Amino acid sequence: MSQFWSNLVHTLTPYVPGEQPKVTNLIKLNTNENPYPPSPKALAAIRAQTGDALKLYPDPNAEVLKQSIADYHQVNLNQVFVGNGSDEVLAHAFQALLKQDKPLLFPDITYSFYPVYCGLYEMDYQTIPLTEQFEINIEDYGQDSGAIIFPNPNAPTGRLLNLEAIELLLKAHSNKVVVVDEAYIDFGGESAIALVNQYANLLVIQTLSKSRSLAGMRVGFAIGQAPLIEGLERVKNSFNSYPLDRLAIYGAKAAFEDEEYFQACCQKIITTRNHLTQTLEALGFSVIPSAANFVFATHPNYSAEKIAASLREKSIIVRYFKQARVDQYLRITIGTDLENTALCDALNQIIR
Amino acid sequence: MSQFWSNLVHTLTPYVPGEQPKVTNLIKLNTNENPYPPSPKALAAIRAQTGDALKLYPDPNAEVLKQSIADYHQVNLNQVFVGNGSDEVLAHAFQALLKQDKPLLFPDITYSFYPVYCGLYEMDYQTIPLTEQFEINIEDYGQDSGAIIFPNPNAPTGRLLNLEAIELLLKAHSNKVVVVDEAYIDFGGESAIALVNQYANLLVIQTLSKSRSLAGMRVGFAIGQAPLIEGLERVKNSFNSYPLDRLAIYGAKAAFEDEEYFQACCQKIITTRNHLTQTLEALGFSVIPSAANFVFATHPNYSAEKIAASLREKSIIVRYFKQARVDQYLRITIGTDLENTALCDALNQIIR
Repeated sequence: MSQFWSNLVHTLTPYVPGEQPKVTNLIKLNTNENPYPPSPKALAAIRAQTGDALKLYPDPNAEVLKQSIADYHQVNLNQVFVGNGSDEVLAHAFQALLKQDKPLLFPDITYSFYPVYCGLYEMDYQTIPLTEQFEINIEDYGQDSGAIIFPNPNAPTGRLLNLEAIELLLKAHSNKVVVVDEAYIDFGGESAIALVNQYANLLVIQTLSKSRSLAGMRVGFAIGQAPLIEGLERVKNSFNSYPLDRLAIYGAKAAFEDEEYFQACCQKIITTRNHLTQTLEALGFSVIPSAANFVFATHPNYSAEKIAASLREKSIIVRYFKQARVDQYLRITIGTDLENTALCDALNQIIR
Repeated sequence: MSQFWSNLVHTLTPYVPGEQPKVTNLIKLNTNENPYPPSPKALAAIRAQTGDALKLYPDPNAEVLKQSIADYHQVNLNQVFVGNGSDEVLAHAFQALLKQDKPLLFPDITYSFYPVYCGLYEMDYQTIPLTEQFEINIEDYGQDSGAIIFPNPNAPTGRLLNLEAIELLLKAHSNKVVVVDEAYIDFGGESAIALVNQYANLLVIQTLSKSRSLAGMRVGFAIGQAPLIEGLERVKNSFNSYPLDRLAIYGAKAAFEDEEYFQACCQKIITTRNHLTQTLEALGFSVIPSAANFVFATHPNYSAEKIAASLREKSIIVRYFKQARVDQYLRITIGTDLENTALCDALNQIIR
């Protein structure tokens, strides 16, 4: 507390990210990072840019990266926005597009940064309960509102909403922005980017932190029709001219251009997820069907907190949440096969 | 314009940074970059981190970097805030500290991002005219206000305010935050960081983009007493958990630890600035005394716009501003000796 703070600061409840432990030799399954390293081509591109040119400002528009993303997703350059991680892209979207006279809607169980952004930009919001099976039911979004946002697959449930449902939602709310936050879409979902050219109210946000293994580089992006992108650019250019450094621009571009490596990593994670799901179910867990690089699971006889603590004693960290409805669930990031075997062995000891 | 924009977006007038030309072989003296490359130790540190660990999120608190900055400036760890370039640090300072019930004060001729931030955070501000000699006169800041910000040396004038004057200002306004934006302090000024432990209302902001040759990496920081830093952290953690990527954290840390290289670069720039000032004065320019890595100069017989255009024809780019009072001034970044010789030769041809 300080007399020097703005009125706003006193009201904020900041987001608390998952732990980044300083000790090594942990099996880290708590923040949904990719267990596989970045594309060797991305690392080579970063090394190639690590030289005298770092004395110069980067391109404020990050055009070479935007062009790679536009080519990959078959949209125009002016339909792409990039930011310093998808959290920054989300922040700008809240300020530029989601702040309206009527409340923003999002699920009750969802990415816990959404209410924090609402606090930062002094926005009203209302949460819409997921169904008993933790599904988003688009018919529940009928009330008067200014905009809608949800992750797909949802976090921390991993549950996917199909494109047909998203299209119905876009049609039913054509006068308001709908943001689909696709941080985890590459692990088994179908991207709503396919709908961008048909729906002027759709903004899709993705990240290179998960499926592209670049959490350490901080790159996210949004795709939508040009007027939505222009709204984001106006806020970005009133906040920070150069959010992406030179190495992030070129590393992300190279990552986007290494399709083979990307597909191979995603496929390995999907396979491991299926194995983990089977093991968990065999141990008596109930597992929400996941299209993400994590699973969300609960056990009828063991508390989530206790399982997490027991895993931690075995040097494995997973995440759990204190929120109502999900306080008995563990969110477990998909690791390598070796990490997954260690996890399954540990759970076998804990549960039996 | 779009029906989907928030009310705020319609009102914004974004900042326009200096040109980052895509053609090479230009002598680029328009955006105050350092003409010397980053410390070889900084580049080595970046290369050493360019590996598998980029799959993981960076430390959200960037503690190793904060510790280096704290050690260098002899303050505590909780007196250091870091951000994605000093523009991001400034943005957070506007939202967390400078937004008050009464208007913010800053000079009429100053960093042109300040009114943009006021637009973004819907803040009232009033500009205080510099003196005829483009000096900040602290006695002109007596009116009722909520906070004060100015660059020191000022931009784009390069003119320095001494620490005695700053201390008087801090004493006269002990109930409000005073931000001293020291992007250019290392080129001949004395930092107000020396006053931080005595004045609870002082926040000093610096960048690694100028004197540390890392504009391409995007790292800035603020130093103040712990409550001011906590205010910034609360906003940062409500906006983006990980604003600094792993390479920026380690590159910046290494740059901070290479004192010898840093001092040598600053000294070369100061020497070249003195040579350029002499040449400009010999050509009839009036040059504002500069403590920055640029000079601000006007010629009685030639318009700034025309000189800039003539220089551009000779592949040299400098900056000029369309604002009242300074529309006849050129802002010329200090280059290498070779670049400076080319500039002086070109000016000799243009002016004679």
